[in-house]
Amino acid sequence: MSPAAPSPAYRRLSVEERRAQLLDAALSLFAHRAPEEVSLDDVAEAAGVSRPLVYRYFPGGKQQLYEAALRSAAEELRHCFDAPREGPLLGRLGGALDRYLAFVDSHDAGFTALLQGGSVVETSRTSAIVDGVRRAAAEHILSHLEVTDPGPWLRMTVRVWITAVEAASLIWLDEGKQPPAADLRDWLVEEFTAVLAATAARDEQAAELVRRLAPADG
Amino acid sequence: MSPAAPSPAYRRLSVEERRAQLLDAALSLFAHRAPEEVSLDDVAEAAGVSRPLVYRYFPGGKQQLYEAALRSAAEELRHCFDAPREGPLLGRLGGALDRYLAFVDSHDAGFTALLQGGSVVETSRTSAIVDGVRRAAAEHILSHLEVTDPGPWLRMTVRVWITAVEAASLIWLDEGKQPPAADLRDWLVEEFTAVLAATAARDEQAAELVRRLAPADG
Repeated sequence: MSPAAPSPAYRRLSVEERRAQLLDAALSLFAHRAPEEVSLDDVAEAAGVSRPLVYRYFPGGKQQLYEAALRSAAEELRHCFDAPREGPLLGRLGGALDRYLAFVDSHDAGFTALLQGGSVVETSRTSAIVDGVRRAAAEHILSHLEVTDPGPWLRMTVRVWITAVEAASLIWLDEGKQPPAADLRDWLVEEFTAVLAATAARDEQAAELVRRLAPADG
Repeated sequence: MSPAAPSPAYRRLSVEERRAQLLDAALSLFAHRAPEEVSLDDVAEAAGVSRPLVYRYFPGGKQQLYEAALRSAAEELRHCFDAPREGPLLGRLGGALDRYLAFVDSHDAGFTALLQGGSVVETSRTSAIVDGVRRAAAEHILSHLEVTDPGPWLRMTVRVWITAVEAASLIWLDEGKQPPAADLRDWLVEEFTAVLAATAARDEQAAELVRRLAPADG
């Protein structure tokens, strides 16, 4: 109630805070429109700031803003699979998928545009950012599984499953978010154990993992 | 031995034959280089024709040539999953994968550039061509399985498995074509039955398919 406290709306933001505010505004626009349909004017309007200010932060224009927003989204996605190392392994995987699907749910069209390519602002640099997220997710999973030296079959199994998660979320958005996220999460965990079990028939490392997963989580 | 027979090298080609010749030359260049690194000059040289002739067939330049080559590759890929309707179902799936992996093997870097995006010549139109191949493959598989009205779980399972095949082939190229193609094919068929069995736990349509696949192919 102190009259001396400045209203947050008028507080002067630091450079980092302002940048984060503009990226938030951009990400929320990308959630409903393809990146090529979002202008710097739209971002200025959504953030309630002047157009020159947006240009001061992103002098490279739309492409720079898009890449910064993509990096910020990638950072968030990386955290999804960076779960605490406690509890049953399949429960941790389910938790990571819950966070991932919540991100997909809230970013919607922006997530599709980001992953599906075909956007006019997509370049080999933006593809590398998306690929970095996939690699990070694979590393987190292998590290939770306590595999330090994954062989080719296990690497293939985990990387292919991550693409399956991505494809499933795109299809999920395409089908109007049906089936419910919780069912999709359970199905994806079940698919993980199923593909791991299939790989176990030809790979000792996968077989060892199946044995470790079974008693604690089964 | 008749002196009247013209040498094939000097035979005048029809418009369609010439076009096919130029596309073959382009596809073989795309097999070793990213599309943006292939010029119309290169195509003229590879086909042993003049540069103006290439321009006459592809007045839209590189972008038009790339799209035509992509369409021609897409046509080939569609045929991979269009197998004869005879023999055990899993055997047909293995045959389709053999054709698919042979295509991946022979087109190599061009296949990666085509599917991974990040190419400067990628547009929403080229993405639609690639997506059309995925949809056609899903339809062929469902039709072989004699499913006329697939529910959401079965559609999801088949579409996600197709992305898995794609991801696995990109990883396979990335790893210097290891493991051998025949092992990768067997693994992909095993993954198909594994994910179908996992889906069967929550979906009657998938359960029915698992029952049908088991006695004949198991």
